[in-house]
Amino acid sequence: MDFDPLTPRFYARPMTDKSLSDDIAERVRASFAQQAAMQSIGASIVRLAAGEVELTMPYRAELTQQHGFLHAGIVTTLADSACGYAALSLMPLGSDVLSVEFKVNLLRPAAGQRFRAVGSVLKSGRTLMVTRGDVWATQDDQEVLIATMLATMIRK
Amino acid sequence: MDFDPLTPRFYARPMTDKSLSDDIAERVRASFAQQAAMQSIGASIVRLAAGEVELTMPYRAELTQQHGFLHAGIVTTLADSACGYAALSLMPLGSDVLSVEFKVNLLRPAAGQRFRAVGSVLKSGRTLMVTRGDVWATQDDQEVLIATMLATMIRK
Amino acid sequence: MDFDPLTPRFYARPMTDKSLSDDIAERVRASFAQQAAMQSIGASIVRLAAGEVELTMPYRAELTQQHGFLHAGIVTTLADSACGYAALSLMPLGSDVLSVEFKVNLLRPAAGQRFRAVGSVLKSGRTLMVTRGDVWATQDDQEVLIATMLATMIRK
Amino acid sequence: MDFDPLTPRFYARPMTDKSLSDDIAERVRASFAQQAAMQSIGASIVRLAAGEVELTMPYRAELTQQHGFLHAGIVTTLADSACGYAALSLMPLGSDVLSVEFKVNLLRPAAGQRFRAVGSVLKSGRTLMVTRGDVWATQDDQEVLIATMLATMIRK
Repeated sequence: MDFDPLTPRFYARPMTDKSLSDDIAERVRASFAQQAAMQSIGASIVRLAAGEVELTMPYRAELTQQHGFLHAGIVTTLADSACGYAALSLMPLGSDVLSVEFKVNLLRPAAGQRFRAVGSVLKSGRTLMVTRGDVWATQDDQEVLIATMLATMIRK
Repeated sequence: MDFDPLTPRFYARPMTDKSLSDDIAERVRASFAQQAAMQSIGASIVRLAAGEVELTMPYRAELTQQHGFLHAGIVTTLADSACGYAALSLMPLGSDVLSVEFKVNLLRPAAGQRFRAVGSVLKSGRTLMVTRGDVWATQDDQEVLIATMLATMIRK
Repeated sequence: MDFDPLTPRFYARPMTDKSLSDDIAERVRASFAQQAAMQSIGASIVRLAAGEVELTMPYRAELTQQHGFLHAGIVTTLADSACGYAALSLMPLGSDVLSVEFKVNLLRPAAGQRFRAVGSVLKSGRTLMVTRGDVWATQDDQEVLIATMLATMIRK
Repeated sequence: MDFDPLTPRFYARPMTDKSLSDDIAERVRASFAQQAAMQSIGASIVRLAAGEVELTMPYRAELTQQHGFLHAGIVTTLADSACGYAALSLMPLGSDVLSVEFKVNLLRPAAGQRFRAVGSVLKSGRTLMVTRGDVWATQDDQEVLIATMLATMIRK
């Protein structure tokens, strides 16, 4: 079975090229800076666009499960913030974002030197935003998709 | 907010061009024909490929919820079968497929003359397959994404 | 492994005894009567209480999957309506309810003569309601839990 | 609307009283001790039973989101381990457990001095186990349910 749906060939989709206004980008960065959990796991912002946010974090031995892979909950932490800020990037100034719920499928062991999460808005409503988050692990210059999230965010 | 993540520009992704062997295609068609629920909702197969199955069904007034839109459970029925057969298309002959679980986000009212579900395999394992299903409604020649599913299938 | 978490001993929880006001009960019944899908699958209301709704439906050969079990999407249809009306039962008059999203785990084959879904509100908010739905199959006077749903509903 | 589904009256269910054999309890404790993430978030085991595991952790300012509440991903980390070990407690010796997928609804802000997660097995299969996880926050001697998880675990 040489079908591999995890290659970019099958999975990638065009990224939005719509840039954020300066004040909205600043708001996202300010909120991210206040998430102490992001600093504790070593996460940083790679890219901000309208409806799409990319975060990255290194492997950390102190955040692992029993086999030395990143704990599924930590993978979720990164994906949830990526999805939340993707949603916030489309909300009017003065809004805040909260996670209503999410579902995560763990596709492969979270093994690698770095992890990268991309959150994208699938449906932007006035109150609710539906987002998708994908997490890749980089191991020896190869990237594999390790988890995918489907999340609902609410504007407050 | 003119960002529209639901346009093909943002949502579409390359479809697999890998065709199915005749015996596997036949097995999928035979199993589909045995799903009485598919006939009851008027569903038919549009396209079979390795790891990807597309189904369609018409609007039916007798399958609606209180506003005359297709019931979320019927949308789910179509998406679940698309995902299940996408999974089965990658399994060795003699296998059968069962749904372990799924999560569905209802993005827009299921209003339209026709509905189209595409199920794709995200991760193909020996026992479990993780699939994604998207459902579009066609209304006056316009297609909109109305639901997205993330589902786990098991080989039996 | 004689542990059986599916027995009432482990799974049952006290049902609410709070009855609905007449006008709210009437609203729920009126909305249910408008769901053509409920009639098509043969569903009826067993019990209405504040935050809890019980529905039932018979086995129907025309709603099955490839093994003759009720299709997972039909099980979902019943559970979704039970959850939606449990949510509506706690909303002020003039409200309507829509499903935002749900996740369903299929625990056992949907085999039996009858099916029973209980939807309960876990968290009642002003805009969103989080609900749980459980579906049992009755086979030869024995009931087994066949599916469990976790769903988010929105007030419109 | 004085209905409160979060009180023990509505939510509690009988806990299993089936104790674990010593070797299985030891295996769960050993695996838990190897989850570095559990130590990093300050989690510990409160109770082990057949099909049910209870974990606790204190509030930690370094694990919060932008409002100073525990990050949804950290709540998930605790719930996921509780569910995983509940599943492992029913598996034969020599097994290991991995999370296939989970869905979490965040019901209330994760505010409090302590957090408590209970993972329970809803369906115990040979390969897959379906579990439910609930997380409570304790604030000023009051406990409120803040999150609920529905998770699928696999035996390896």
